[in-house]
Amino acid sequence: MQGNGLDAYVGGVVYRGAGPIAGAAAGAAAVLVRSVGGADYRLPHTGLTQYAPDVQKVPAAAVTAEDANLLKDLASQGPVKMRLVLTPQTLPDALSYNVIADWKGTEHPEQVVVVSGHLDSWDLGTGAIDDGAGVVVSMQAIHLLKGLGIHPKRTVRFIAWMSEEEGSEGAAAYMMDHKADAATHIGAIESDLGADHPTGIYYSGKGELGQWLRPVAQVLDPIGAESLVSAPDTGEDIAGLTEKGVPSFAPVQDSRFYFNYHHTAADTFDKVDPMHLNENAAVMTVLAYALADSAEPAPR
Amino acid sequence: MQGNGLDAYVGGVVYRGAGPIAGAAAGAAAVLVRSVGGADYRLPHTGLTQYAPDVQKVPAAAVTAEDANLLKDLASQGPVKMRLVLTPQTLPDALSYNVIADWKGTEHPEQVVVVSGHLDSWDLGTGAIDDGAGVVVSMQAIHLLKGLGIHPKRTVRFIAWMSEEEGSEGAAAYMMDHKADAATHIGAIESDLGADHPTGIYYSGKGELGQWLRPVAQVLDPIGAESLVSAPDTGEDIAGLTEKGVPSFAPVQDSRFYFNYHHTAADTFDKVDPMHLNENAAVMTVLAYALADSAEPAPR
Repeated sequence: MQGNGLDAYVGGVVYRGAGPIAGAAAGAAAVLVRSVGGADYRLPHTGLTQYAPDVQKVPAAAVTAEDANLLKDLASQGPVKMRLVLTPQTLPDALSYNVIADWKGTEHPEQVVVVSGHLDSWDLGTGAIDDGAGVVVSMQAIHLLKGLGIHPKRTVRFIAWMSEEEGSEGAAAYMMDHKADAATHIGAIESDLGADHPTGIYYSGKGELGQWLRPVAQVLDPIGAESLVSAPDTGEDIAGLTEKGVPSFAPVQDSRFYFNYHHTAADTFDKVDPMHLNENAAVMTVLAYALADSAEPAPR
Repeated sequence: MQGNGLDAYVGGVVYRGAGPIAGAAAGAAAVLVRSVGGADYRLPHTGLTQYAPDVQKVPAAAVTAEDANLLKDLASQGPVKMRLVLTPQTLPDALSYNVIADWKGTEHPEQVVVVSGHLDSWDLGTGAIDDGAGVVVSMQAIHLLKGLGIHPKRTVRFIAWMSEEEGSEGAAAYMMDHKADAATHIGAIESDLGADHPTGIYYSGKGELGQWLRPVAQVLDPIGAESLVSAPDTGEDIAGLTEKGVPSFAPVQDSRFYFNYHHTAADTFDKVDPMHLNENAAVMTVLAYALADSAEPAPR
């Protein structure tokens, strides 16, 4: 995937994810990473942290950019002692669910187009842009088509994925349940890059898919969402479907501000601009309609 | 005083300051105010809160803009119950000091020009822009003149005011100590609006002062700090001198971002742009030199 803020995030987040393993392997007592995110408002920005089975687990935390600067300055002057008070706990797994709703197709109800976002969020904020927005625009796709009196040939399946933040466990469960019928999945869309202005569509699949998407892009041109971007990944929760050869998609979004907010306490409802949210709903709806109602399924 | 962010702050801060009095007078159990500041990063933004002797003191706090939005939405739906846990304490007064250094003038050492900022800061941040920057550019005025081999006729008095945030108590003590010699104060400058690009000089005094400042503005034109703005106030700590008729001054600063940070945890060293800080030092230095070395004292 491409995008200004996204590129920066992808480049930086590996240190948060793999840092505790690398640190422990080097004999660290604990690992602190500089918050991955663009805002300079002293926000700690956290997320998935990885451990390896053969490496000792050490405490790990994110510090704000400002505090990381201070630590760097102090460390350049000599040894620095820190006392860490880390309160997070990893609780035992609890039963939870993906939320799935099928709007059956008129001609090929067994053929499925997935529209989706994820239901859980990281714990600091309320998850308005990560990923309340994705869930909402997915619901909106069905709502808008119904409102327009358009009932597609194929089934449109709304999925609010559970436990994306913990490692896409809801998606893994879905893939277990649908081992046998990946072939009937005609396409899958996930919106998990916020609620900002969409500029086009990421797609993952064979080259012909780009050709096939051209009329869709043309329809989205009036809202500035006409670019088609080939990408290896389209979303954490639909990666399993992508691997099975299902054409998969995501709105390309202006990512300049998303990483300032996501996984921080400032991911709140006010960050959602209704106009931009509607534009994302338009991308989701037009694409879902094309996938669910085309004469032939999209190339796979 | 004028300025985009500043205007907004001055318009809004009255609710924080006087809110607890107005709330208690209306029978409130506690008062919460929406944070006064422009940032949407879920930062509580606090500061001086006032009580009146004849009105019951009630708990008062600032909530972030985001949480204020939520409370407003909930309150529009029906009664809202809140449990407040407020941890701040007002401790007994402790002895502290203004920090004052005189650089004696060559011809009129008894005539004084004050260059100043305040030493204390609000407790959430480290006070880099409120008002470490003001203290630094005031020191820099003397340092730069010395470096240039310029020793003015009049005394340049550096003051780092103590306890500005608590109600300018250091300034009040200074005025007590200098009851008798306000007349020998030729001018007073305070920088307490951050470290951002200066666009000119606020001045408080009679009309002729504007005329007198024109050559100073001309010197500052190359750095874009040439505007002269008449204002009733120039700074909390020099307000007492202003009242006594001492010509007083402050750098006019770009205030678009200052109120996003000041009195929040994000008022940290990284918010200071060295180029802008140098520009403010230039304003302070040129103005201090003009006041301390002019043939006649500035008009009062």
